[in-house]
Amino acid sequence: MATMNQRLVLASRPTGKPTATNFRLEQVPLPALADGEVLVRHHYLSLDPYMRARMSDGKSYAQPQPLDAVMIGGTVGEVVESRHSGFRAGDPVVGMGGWQQYSVVAAAQPGALRKVDTTHVPIAAYLGAVGMPGVTAWVGLNHIIEAKAGETIVVSAASGAVGGVVGQLAKARGCRVVGIAGGADKCGYVVDELGFDACIDHKTLDGTDAIAAALQRACPNGIDGDFENVGGAILDAVMRHANAFSRIAMCGMIAGYNDVPIPMAAPQLILLNRMKVQGFIVSEHMPLWPQALAELAQRVAAGTLKYRETIAQGLESAPAAFIGLLEGRNFGKQLVRLI
Amino acid sequence: MATMNQRLVLASRPTGKPTATNFRLEQVPLPALADGEVLVRHHYLSLDPYMRARMSDGKSYAQPQPLDAVMIGGTVGEVVESRHSGFRAGDPVVGMGGWQQYSVVAAAQPGALRKVDTTHVPIAAYLGAVGMPGVTAWVGLNHIIEAKAGETIVVSAASGAVGGVVGQLAKARGCRVVGIAGGADKCGYVVDELGFDACIDHKTLDGTDAIAAALQRACPNGIDGDFENVGGAILDAVMRHANAFSRIAMCGMIAGYNDVPIPMAAPQLILLNRMKVQGFIVSEHMPLWPQALAELAQRVAAGTLKYRETIAQGLESAPAAFIGLLEGRNFGKQLVRLI
Repeated sequence: MATMNQRLVLASRPTGKPTATNFRLEQVPLPALADGEVLVRHHYLSLDPYMRARMSDGKSYAQPQPLDAVMIGGTVGEVVESRHSGFRAGDPVVGMGGWQQYSVVAAAQPGALRKVDTTHVPIAAYLGAVGMPGVTAWVGLNHIIEAKAGETIVVSAASGAVGGVVGQLAKARGCRVVGIAGGADKCGYVVDELGFDACIDHKTLDGTDAIAAALQRACPNGIDGDFENVGGAILDAVMRHANAFSRIAMCGMIAGYNDVPIPMAAPQLILLNRMKVQGFIVSEHMPLWPQALAELAQRVAAGTLKYRETIAQGLESAPAAFIGLLEGRNFGKQLVRLI
Repeated sequence: MATMNQRLVLASRPTGKPTATNFRLEQVPLPALADGEVLVRHHYLSLDPYMRARMSDGKSYAQPQPLDAVMIGGTVGEVVESRHSGFRAGDPVVGMGGWQQYSVVAAAQPGALRKVDTTHVPIAAYLGAVGMPGVTAWVGLNHIIEAKAGETIVVSAASGAVGGVVGQLAKARGCRVVGIAGGADKCGYVVDELGFDACIDHKTLDGTDAIAAALQRACPNGIDGDFENVGGAILDAVMRHANAFSRIAMCGMIAGYNDVPIPMAAPQLILLNRMKVQGFIVSEHMPLWPQALAELAQRVAAGTLKYRETIAQGLESAPAAFIGLLEGRNFGKQLVRLI
């Protein structure tokens, strides 16, 4: 039985892009379990763009990540010891264990730890297509965009953990789906493997005008829905071709995560086109999770919902992998393997 | 019986602010009525900010106003001759007669002409509080903002035909209401006569920071809903103090009507605060009109919905009055009296 735990804490708040010096690797002893607690060994840690916002202490929808505390993050793993009757050693579980090898979880707390079925779904998928990113895609598409058959849906960061699910679900609902991604390999994957109708490589396009021209070619009937993971020039370009009564689900503004706000060039289009632009956070839509997870798990098990992972090895690789994620160097879901 | 009609046509499209030379006054003979037609003598012409957008041929939600045709506009007046069984001479009516003394209306067309009750409601009110501006206020407050008792609602152009109704309805629903208007006289009227809780004079405040500071003082619990008639710095300032799950009804961007788009400074706030920003046009919510008009008429008749009018005399004064409206020189509903 392990007695020591390796963990990464936030050592300082980044200004602009995070660097390795914002994190500190620590070795700490594992405490003995109290009644109701469960010790989990993490197999995978999830890295997600929202973590950048938590690293700042500016206004956000969540409390900032405290300094000198373990970085928050979703984890999947295996129960190694349990003092809660609902869990026993060997159970595969998903939780918010943070950037560390082990976590001690007060398992009675609602939502703190959930047993998962690894017979039909690989355990790492519970951090991606059958986890928070997948449910984010499901909620945004079905409850913010309310996509209908025959409509044209645009998805930015289309090869990512969220974007890839958005597009495949939209195709399943009978939409025309156009992705936006960075690089020919990502765009090829989005079209050839995920089945999008088209994908625009924003790395070959300089600025709003060029992206807008590419969108116009890819969306001959205009844009009815946009699942926005990026913001900035991409959002401005989408708005130029937005149809009357179109909906934008604001899920991420990765272009603005490094503390630099990017204006929206033409907000009058919201009025001219009677658009709805709505921000949402998936954790505030908990009643929808069971239905979403059921569909996502069924599709992954059936092979009709595909995804890709970029896996960094070892906890010490997490800071560099996270910085790479913010720069779009990952391909699909970014994970850190901890075993 | 009159045989000649005076009318104003659009002579040229303005670039930036309209000028008197964009309009041309004409005298034309009145045609004989065909079956089903009604001749209406206009008592009042309504001037509204939306007309500026129609004067340009850029993308808008409506067809541009054709050159050399009568400027569109809402009118109230009296039937002088009828060849439609539903109307007879003397009937008070509301319609879209345009910038002219008389109109010939194909009265069978749905919505073209509506008889109104002038016993309890003054006829001019059907162009304001009990007309399109009032219904705009009603729809935006009830169906876009969905204002609830105890919430704080901000209204820009608060002394205007729309804004004044928004605020009074919001007060009747139990909200705290903060107006934004230009000048001490308008702000005094908004608070003292219309019953708003506070009103911010944006003419004394230079830029987003100053407006935001004033809003913070006037909205100690933040902003839950914003009825946006202006855009630009006012919208940016409102967004800085928008609460989680707040709603912005985009009704007008008068700051941008003169063809100059004004960016939204911090669109990431839509995500951070899970806001809904939605544009709407009242003519696309026709099923709501009867209910809205019934409440508005009842409140005007009962004296619980107040309004103010600025009345220009004579058709030839319409261009100058319209230019003044775009500059905020009117006080309340801008009308042109044609009799």
